[in-house]
Parts: sequence; C-alpha cells; structure tokens
Amino acid sequence: MIKVGIIGATGYAGGELVRLLLNHRDAEIVWYGSRSYIDQKYGEVYRNMFRLVENVCRDDNLAELAEQVDVIFTATPQGFLAGVLTEEILSKVRVVDLSADYRLQDVAIYEKWYGIEHKSPQFIPEAVYGLCEINRGRITEKTRLVANPGCYTTCAILTAYPLVKEGLIDTDTLIVDAKSGTSGAGRGAKVNNLFCEVNENIKAYSVASHRHTPEIEEQLGYAAGRGVMINFTPHLVPMNRGILVTEYAKLIRKADGSLPSCEEVRAAYDKYYREERFVRVLEQGVCPETRWVEGSNYVDVNFCIDERTGRVIMMGALDNLVKGAAGQAVQNMNLLFGRPEDEGLELVPCFP
Amino acid sequence: MIKVGIIGATGYAGGELVRLLLNHRDAEIVWYGSRSYIDQKYGEVYRNMFRLVENVCRDDNLAELAEQVDVIFTATPQGFLAGVLTEEILSKVRVVDLSADYRLQDVAIYEKWYGIEHKSPQFIPEAVYGLCEINRGRITEKTRLVANPGCYTTCAILTAYPLVKEGLIDTDTLIVDAKSGTSGAGRGAKVNNLFCEVNENIKAYSVASHRHTPEIEEQLGYAAGRGVMINFTPHLVPMNRGILVTEYAKLIRKADGSLPSCEEVRAAYDKYYREERFVRVLEQGVCPETRWVEGSNYVDVNFCIDERTGRVIMMGALDNLVKGAAGQAVQNMNLLFGRPEDEGLELVPCFP
Amino acid sequence: MIKVGIIGATGYAGGELVRLLLNHRDAEIVWYGSRSYIDQKYGEVYRNMFRLVENVCRDDNLAELAEQVDVIFTATPQGFLAGVLTEEILSKVRVVDLSADYRLQDVAIYEKWYGIEHKSPQFIPEAVYGLCEINRGRITEKTRLVANPGCYTTCAILTAYPLVKEGLIDTDTLIVDAKSGTSGAGRGAKVNNLFCEVNENIKAYSVASHRHTPEIEEQLGYAAGRGVMINFTPHLVPMNRGILVTEYAKLIRKADGSLPSCEEVRAAYDKYYREERFVRVLEQGVCPETRWVEGSNYVDVNFCIDERTGRVIMMGALDNLVKGAAGQAVQNMNLLFGRPEDEGLELVPCFP
Amino acid sequence: MIKVGIIGATGYAGGELVRLLLNHRDAEIVWYGSRSYIDQKYGEVYRNMFRLVENVCRDDNLAELAEQVDVIFTATPQGFLAGVLTEEILSKVRVVDLSADYRLQDVAIYEKWYGIEHKSPQFIPEAVYGLCEINRGRITEKTRLVANPGCYTTCAILTAYPLVKEGLIDTDTLIVDAKSGTSGAGRGAKVNNLFCEVNENIKAYSVASHRHTPEIEEQLGYAAGRGVMINFTPHLVPMNRGILVTEYAKLIRKADGSLPSCEEVRAAYDKYYREERFVRVLEQGVCPETRWVEGSNYVDVNFCIDERTGRVIMMGALDNLVKGAAGQAVQNMNLLFGRPEDEGLELVPCFP
Repeated sequence: MIKVGIIGATGYAGGELVRLLLNHRDAEIVWYGSRSYIDQKYGEVYRNMFRLVENVCRDDNLAELAEQVDVIFTATPQGFLAGVLTEEILSKVRVVDLSADYRLQDVAIYEKWYGIEHKSPQFIPEAVYGLCEINRGRITEKTRLVANPGCYTTCAILTAYPLVKEGLIDTDTLIVDAKSGTSGAGRGAKVNNLFCEVNENIKAYSVASHRHTPEIEEQLGYAAGRGVMINFTPHLVPMNRGILVTEYAKLIRKADGSLPSCEEVRAAYDKYYREERFVRVLEQGVCPETRWVEGSNYVDVNFCIDERTGRVIMMGALDNLVKGAAGQAVQNMNLLFGRPEDEGLELVPCFP
Repeated sequence: MIKVGIIGATGYAGGELVRLLLNHRDAEIVWYGSRSYIDQKYGEVYRNMFRLVENVCRDDNLAELAEQVDVIFTATPQGFLAGVLTEEILSKVRVVDLSADYRLQDVAIYEKWYGIEHKSPQFIPEAVYGLCEINRGRITEKTRLVANPGCYTTCAILTAYPLVKEGLIDTDTLIVDAKSGTSGAGRGAKVNNLFCEVNENIKAYSVASHRHTPEIEEQLGYAAGRGVMINFTPHLVPMNRGILVTEYAKLIRKADGSLPSCEEVRAAYDKYYREERFVRVLEQGVCPETRWVEGSNYVDVNFCIDERTGRVIMMGALDNLVKGAAGQAVQNMNLLFGRPEDEGLELVPCFP
Repeated sequence: MIKVGIIGATGYAGGELVRLLLNHRDAEIVWYGSRSYIDQKYGEVYRNMFRLVENVCRDDNLAELAEQVDVIFTATPQGFLAGVLTEEILSKVRVVDLSADYRLQDVAIYEKWYGIEHKSPQFIPEAVYGLCEINRGRITEKTRLVANPGCYTTCAILTAYPLVKEGLIDTDTLIVDAKSGTSGAGRGAKVNNLFCEVNENIKAYSVASHRHTPEIEEQLGYAAGRGVMINFTPHLVPMNRGILVTEYAKLIRKADGSLPSCEEVRAAYDKYYREERFVRVLEQGVCPETRWVEGSNYVDVNFCIDERTGRVIMMGALDNLVKGAAGQAVQNMNLLFGRPEDEGLELVPCFP
Repeated sequence: MIKVGIIGATGYAGGELVRLLLNHRDAEIVWYGSRSYIDQKYGEVYRNMFRLVENVCRDDNLAELAEQVDVIFTATPQGFLAGVLTEEILSKVRVVDLSADYRLQDVAIYEKWYGIEHKSPQFIPEAVYGLCEINRGRITEKTRLVANPGCYTTCAILTAYPLVKEGLIDTDTLIVDAKSGTSGAGRGAKVNNLFCEVNENIKAYSVASHRHTPEIEEQLGYAAGRGVMINFTPHLVPMNRGILVTEYAKLIRKADGSLPSCEEVRAAYDKYYREERFVRVLEQGVCPETRWVEGSNYVDVNFCIDERTGRVIMMGALDNLVKGAAGQAVQNMNLLFGRPEDEGLELVPCFP
C-alpha cells in the first residue's frame, strides 16, 4: 500500500486527487494538507466526502510528512514547493508536483514568465516532466521528482505531438486556441470567478502572456528537435470541467508540392497513440468534445485537413482535473511505484 | 458473471447503466437494445464509450434476449414492458424494470395517472418495489420482477420515511416540493428541452398531476399504515443531474403539547439509516445539495424543525440517474443475484 | 429632469438601477457611490457601461449628496442607511432604500432577524413599504422615505395577495417554497458563490430562518387582517436572474363543504391585477417561468387547484434585479415624482 | 410609421426582431409569419410576449404581405427567399433578408457551400450586403433588397476590417477561431441541441466547412483589394447568447523590419470606428467578453500584439441575436427608411 500525503488537498485539483485515490487499490491517503482549513474535517470542506474521509486537514510540514509517506503530491501555488524542497526530503520521499516549479528546464524562463525567483533550481535537472505518454521511460522507480504537466499544456502537446515529431507541420505557424472550464481557475474567492461573472460569458485572457506558453514550447521543441515559438490563447468557458484545444498549422508540402494525405496524418497519430490506454484518436470527421471525456483520464484527439489553405486543424479534449491534473499525477505515481499505469484510473467518462 | 441485457440502452438512464456495469466486477453487458439506433455502434451514439463498448445497438426482442442473459433491464417508455412481458420470459430471466409499469399495486390507479391500459396486470402482485433500503428483504434470489422506483419517488420517500414510519408527522399536511436536473426529461428531441429553453430558467410543471404522486403515496401509505395523500410539485432546474426535495409537514405534538425535539427526530432517521451504505444523514444544520452526491449512489438527507410553525422541513438530494435510476437498478441486481449490495456502486461523488 | 444619486452603485442591484435609469426620459444619474471602487471609472467596473457612463465612483457621503440630487437610491448592506439617515437629509431629498432597514414596522422583529441594532427607528413609522401594486396610494409626492421590498418578498406577496385578501385560503397552512438565481446573492467574493460551487447544483439555505420571512408575514398580515405565520424556504438555482415561488395553502371550503371553483379563485386574481401594468395573470394551466420575465418589470402569476387535497398551489415569477429590486425602485421613484408609473420600465422580457 | 412583416417570426432571430421592434418608435409589426405555428397566438409561442403581442401567427404569403407592409424581414432557412422572391414583390416592398440567399455575389460559391440551387440569382447584383459600418453609403431609401450579414460574419469582419483595409496584416495568415452561444443553432428540436448535450461541453463543428467562411472571405477581400482565404472554426459554447472571435494574423513588418506599434494598430481601429455608434474599441489590455454586450447592438473589439511571434491577436464580441441578426436588421431598416440609425437600438447591455 502506497502511503500518500497531499499538500493543497482542498483546492479543486487536490479534491480530485482524493476522489481518485479513494478508489485506488494500492494507495492510502494519510495526510490531507490545507493551510486554509487546518483542523477542519476534510468531509466538511468537501461534503461529497462526508463519511468517506474522516481525516482533518493539517498544515503543510513537508519535513514531517516525508517521514510518514511514500509520495507527496503538491497541488500548491507556484513557488511553494521550490521554496521548501530539500535534498533531505527528496532522499526520503517521492514528490509529484502539480505546480509549475520544476516543469521548465531553463530557470530564467521560469522566472520571467512567473515573475518570481526560483528558490531551488538545483533540483530542476533531475525533475522529470511527467507527460507519461511521451516521457514514460524516464518515470521509474528511481525517479524522485516529477513535474506534473499543466492542464492546457497536456492537451496542447498531446494534440500536436505526432505531427511535430514526424515533421508534418511547420511549427512556425502553430497556433493554439484553448478553451477551459472554470475549475481551472481554482477555488479562490475572486469576483471574476463568481457564478454571475462566468455564466453566460466567454472571454479570452492572458493573451500572448499565459504561463503555459513556454511549457508547451519547450516540450514541442524536444519533439521538433529545434526551438518552437507559438501563439497560445486561453479562454474561459461557463462549465465546470474540460479543456478543448483547437490548433492550427501549415502542413509541410511534399516534394511534389502536394499536401500530406488524411491517411498519412492519421498514421502519425496512430504511430504514437495506437497502444496508448488514455489517448483516443477519434474516427474521421468526429470532433473531440469535452463532455465525452468528463470525469475520466482520456484525451480525445483528431484533426481535419483544409485543402484550401493547406492547414491542418488539430483538436484535443480532456478533463482538466483528471488528465490535466490529478489523473495524470496518479498515472505518474503508478509509474513511480511500478504499478499498472491505469490503476485507479479505469474511469468511464460520465455523461451527461 | 451475470449476463445482462439492456432494453433502452441509449436513453440517459440506459447510458448510465452502461457506465456503472462497465465497472461492475461480476456483470457483463451482452445486449444493447435501442429501437432508435439499431445497427449503429453504441460508442457512436454515446461517444464517451468510444473504445470501451464495441457492440452495436440491437432491437428489443425480449423473448430472444431471455435465452441469452440472466437479467434484463428495461429503461423503456411506460407501457412497453407491460405489453410484452410473459410468463415464459419471467421463467427464464429476471427483469428489473426502470419504467413505472409494475410500481403501483392498484392497476386502476396506474391506468388513471398514466392514461394507458395495463396489458399484463397479472404480474403486478409478484413485482417487488425495488426501494432496497425499505424492501431489501423481499428482493431475493427468488424474485423474478423488480419495479425499480422513480427518481423523484426515491428521493421523496427516503427523505420522509423515518418520520412517517415513526408517526412523528401528520401525513395529511405533507407537501413535497421537488427540483430536478434536465436529464430526468430524457433524450427525446423536444423544443422544451433545448438548451436555450432550459438554461437561465426555472419552472414548475405537471402541478398536482405528476405521475410519481401515487407512487409516493402508496409507499408512504405502507409506512404510515394508512392512506396518504400529498401535494407533489416537480420543477425543472438548469443542470444536468440531481434531484432535491424539500418536504413540509406538521410535527405531531406530544401529550404535553410540546414538539418532538431535534434529537428525537434525528433518532428516527438514525434508526432506519445508521447502517445504510447509501443514505447519509447529514450533520445538524447542513442542507443536502445535489452537487455532493453527483455521480454516486448516495442519498443525502436532513431536516430542520421550525418551532414557530410546528413544522419540520425535510430535505433530500440524490443523482437522478444513479440512485434515482441506474444505480438503484444495479443495487437491485446485486440483491437478486446475492452479490454485495454495493458491488459496482463504490462511486465517490464527483465535484465540481 | 430628476437628479439621482445611487449609493451602492457597483452591486448587482446598483448596476441594474444604472441600466434602467440610462433609458429613463426624466432621470439623470449624477452620483455613482461605491465604497469599494472610489475614483475608478464606473465603466471599468461594469464594462457593459463602457462609453455609456463616463463618471467615476464616489464615496457615500449622504449629506453632500442630499444637496445635489432629488432622490437617493441606497442599494447598501443592512444597517447602513439606518446608521446615517438624518432628519436634515430627509428634509432635502427623497430616499428609496433597497435594503431592509425600514421595511419592518416592528423594530424588535428587525433586530431579532437581522441581528443588528437599528440606529434610527424614529424614521420607521413614516417609511412607506414600496410594493406599488398594493401601497400605490401611499407613495406620493409627499413621501420622503420608501422601503423598497425584498426580491423574494415581492414575488411571495404578490403571488398570494389576492387569495389572502379575499379570505380564500387558510393562512395558517401557507408555505412558500422559493427558488432564486444567483445574482440575488450579490457580488461579494465568497467561495460559496463561485461558478463551480453554484453550477450543476441546487440547495436550500437559511431554512426556517431567512430574513425575508417576517417581511412577508407582516405584509400578508395586513391583507389578512390578522397575524400570519408561514414557512419560507429559499433555494439557490444555477442561473443569473429570476425568482420563482411555489406556494401552498388549504382553500377555505364554502358553507356547503365545496371548494372555491377555479373561476372564483381566478376572479380574485383579476380583481386586484386586471388593471396592473406589471402583473400578468397567466392563462389557465400555464405555469410562470422565470425566462418569460427576464430583464423586465413583470410578475407572472398563476395557480392550480388540487381537488384531491383541497389545496391551491400558487406560483409567481419575476426578475429579482428588476421587479425584485431596481425596477420596483424606479417604479417607486416615478410615483414619488408624479411621473407615469411605467416610465423607463417599458422593458420587453428578453428571451432566450 | 413603418409597417413591418416578419417571415420566420418564431425562430430565435424572429423573436428578437419582435422584441426590438416593440420598442421602436416608428415601426409597427402587422404580420407574424410562422409556418410551424399558423393560427396560434404569438404570445403563446413566446410567453415573454404575453399581453404584449395579441396577434396570431400566419403563413408566409409574400405576395399578399407585399401589399400590406413597407418592409419584410425574412428570418428563414437558406433557399426560402430565393425560391419565392419576384420582381413584383420587390417593386412593392423592401426586403431585409436574414438568411444567406443574397449575401454572396458569386452564385457558384453559394451553391457549392450551401449545397442548394439558387432559384433567383437575378436579384443578387442589386442586393446590398447590410454590414452598416462598412456599406452604410449603399443602404439608402432606394435600396430594395438587403442581405443582412451572418452572426459569425459580422463579428469576424468587423474585428479584422481596419487592419485588413489598412494593409497592416498578411491576410494569407488570417485565422478566425469563433465561439458562439447556442441560440445561434436555432429553435429546431434536435438531440444535439438539448440542454444535457450542450451544457458542460464545448466542441468545434463544421471545421473547414462552415458556410460563413466564403462570406467572410468575400467581404474581407473587398477590404484587402485581393482575394482572401482563411481558416474559420466555429465552436458551440454552453450559453444562450454571444459570439466571441479570436483572430490571428502576421503583422506586416515595416521597411526597417520592425513591427507596427500598438499605437499604429490602434490608430487603424480608431480611423474606422471612432465615430461608430455600435462599435466600441476597448482600452488597451481589455479583452472583449460576450457578457458586456448581451442584449445590445454593440460590437466590442480589441487587439494584442505578440512581439515574440510577430502576430496580432484580434478579438471581437457581439450578441448573435442583436448585432448578429435582428439588431443589425433593424439598423438596416432605419437606413432604408431614412430614420436615425440607432432608433430602437438604444439598448444598454444587460448584465448579469
């Protein structure tokens, strides 16, 4: 039985971790950390957990926690983990970090986009970017620190990855237009996230400046074998869960000037995802929709070629709290401890 | 392994049955019946099931089905099952009926409220009303036909049952004001259920004439040991899932003229529900909310005494597709086949 | 031109006052008071007003304001106006108070239900309860202080008023089950009002303790000519605007034991509302729905008699920000200044 | 008084026309045409109109209608008007067509994208594309036939127009990612538009094949002075009203290799929109949101330059039923009859 501690257990991603781990055969949560609700019963903060969780919320003492558990999930604000992580902690416990602290290999880029100083850059090199479908081989029983990818990022990368990797698209033309449900904005009490402000509305935000941009660029850059620079525009949608990305890029024409065929593009997707448990390449002509993945760890992807413009429109959908956060974190935990990758993640999407 | 056939597999309740049974260790769906989608792949009708269900939809031949399966779920319009059920079918297979055909013992009441002739009243006496928490003892390996309760009914009955049974309230004063999500209205293409007609709106409907009324009255009548007549008013709420009932009744004063105390009322709830896996009596002062049971088989109940008016306000919440339909049907199936009652129903409510 | 000052202009009711008054031929807003946004442009707080309102928000100096305007609307927290109102202010300016400070004639009841001391009870006797359809005669060019009714209250009272006034129902049996959109909860940054907490949920709150209860009781008491005590249960619905009330009461049987007929009950509604500009008694069998009044000053009412139980179910719907707040306040202003009662309120309900 | 007939009065755009025209000083609706509801009272189909409209719905006899009214609005399916329009009708009455029948000057493109034969191409040349801000000079008291622009189109064109017209962007790189509320899908009873199918979901649809594509291309082509070919991707959002477009294009570098500055781009917007009553260029850094224009005829636009990629991200928001349909149609009517362009359109956006 894997002993688990969660720091930030009362945010939405933390709550989803609890939901998933309660149904995980090999995991037991022994520490519900939440600065805002110390000493309150967890089942009173999230009443869906009434009678399911009897624990009270505790503070976020990582050193103490490292003595008690096998793995710590940190679903905390940017900069928190970087500020408290030590070699001693890492020597005792594995850490899956749901924040951005160890996602970017270049600390300067982190400090520029996040606007904070990184307090423990010495751990960045060993951190593994936990996008299991791509980095599976590096997430092993020896890995100490996993940087769990962002929600937008997971969706944006997995949707474009095969075409970037196979050199089918011109990454200089890549544009990611993303739409997210409101749970991605967190549970903080802000006027902008009130029901009446979000309902019956759609807006773009953080245009040309959203922090997930360099994360997408870095990872797609590895796939491309060269630097990638994109436009990424997130939008807020009046729904609880779900991310949809719509991505645009010029297809690279073949020597004879023709575009890659639909079959060729599909073959690229199949090459990387045919065996994947959690990525579903949809049938031709079917667009991904967030409702079909809600509550599950699936990413649905598909594409459409526009012969007129020579562009391919790539689309992907996932549940931001599952594959975009807690589900992927559990998937990483399974890999860290040599468990079946889908343990606790056999979730059938819930509709309607 | 229990072999299962579903008639009406492409309605919302049918879809939920599929979701639940896919995660049931001892059940296997071998027949997806759907008149509207014959020969179409089930995973194309409900794309959340893509790659999870490879079957195609089939017609609703009950006789043939009886040869192939151990239990049939009928999630069909009123009158369908009554029109096709035969002794021969019942001799071969168990039936859990999610329609109202066998819920009312008095066929005259059925025909009056539903406005259709009952074609096989001979099976009514043997049908067991499948409200497991109350009728558990009668749902056994010998039961052939289970009348799975309605969604409003389950919520309305379980919320009031302990107080009616213990004689704490005057049932002549009982009023049930119910609120339901829109999945309860089904998947039929009707203008009234379009997004723009339901969204940003609340309305009452079927006032003083909703068909679940006599069902609530009959079952509470058994508990009261006398006839019960209530007002029941359903409302349509702009959300996918969930039923909330708010029930009002005069508390019966004690010999000294005083009202039953909060502790006495609570003791009644505890008496019937303390051991129940799926009924949660909330802590004092906490109102049930549909969000805390969504996706699960729980019913959350609680009450508030108004000393000023001498009334008790009882409240209950459930997920209409789970405890109000498919979940309860699976619970009944488990009882029919001697399985643990919560097999396949260990669902943690999903929030947000 | 009536010069208007608004205190609390950046709450939802304040914002709606601005929307209505911008289209009012005879009114001009000269003061946008908002403690939270002092010196900010109003059109930046509510960007729908961009280019329509150039004013900046100001503090809430009532004494200064009284020199500049003809009427002050206070859309402020309970206790605010009572704390600052003086004879001098009232001698210079009319006040329409959207808070509860002067709605209840019995200050003890106010202090009990609101839990605060009333700082200026001396003005209570002269305050007129501004439910125009009932108190129109008392809202004149001589009135100095109008207590604008609450949103739930307006809907609850107007729905039952004719039957109470005509003695058709037993007020001891009256139950008001109310459902409200979320704008009624205000624009404060609270976790409970976040999109993800309200969306896909319905709940009751303040059961047997909501502050609008004594207000309904007092006003219906005047109509009944005796004390009235009710149960009132508000519910929060995932929509922006709208209140629906469903009210239950026993009809008083006639000397021969029969119930009042549908025509007799309807005649009572017609007696009071036939000439009313803003109350629509719907056709038989049609239930009020909030969508049909959204954005307008209408109240839609109707009823259904249940012969079985001898009860009448009364229903009413309004827009909580219009007839339930700002619209009714403008209606009161029109009466105070001798303008046509519907000036600025010729709003066609906006659907969908 | 302008006498108005509406064909298709019971669709959502038709209903909005009624709402707007009821508040228009100079217009009177004398014919509510609706094939689906012939002889039913309009106020029963749209109960917001109860007591406001006493007319019954009538058939769609254009010849008869031409005798009775000054202007006909056709809010009808594609192909309807083209099938019935005659020289005789046009000689008697002005027509504002909300369908696509006369929007495209090239009939071959119409027939290809709409998949139907055009029955009266002889009227195409005289039809004026009724995008008032751009074609105002051509919509005069002599114009007989106005092709009212599509909802997506209005938003897409107005958002990019100044930059295209001024040659600031490379139109070969133009991508339009659009998001629409569900009223744009119409009031037809389709499973895909049911509440439970749309709610809690976002999806792209008609990718690379939506019919508004050639309309955008034709109009932007006029502005560019050369052919324009774009990618246009519409998405369905769980809200009633509103369209948001997010548009991407490469800025054309100046001779010295530098990008146009923020001021230069803004100057282009101001050049075309400074005097416009219904286009609001927002302040720097403020993104358009659909909530701020709801219920009004405004289009809010803004842009953001990404120095990293050399692209400009343009954004626009409007209410698809007002500026995207009925509001623009009334604006056109005002121009046709020499009335002030904003008559009946002084609508303050309604929030929340």
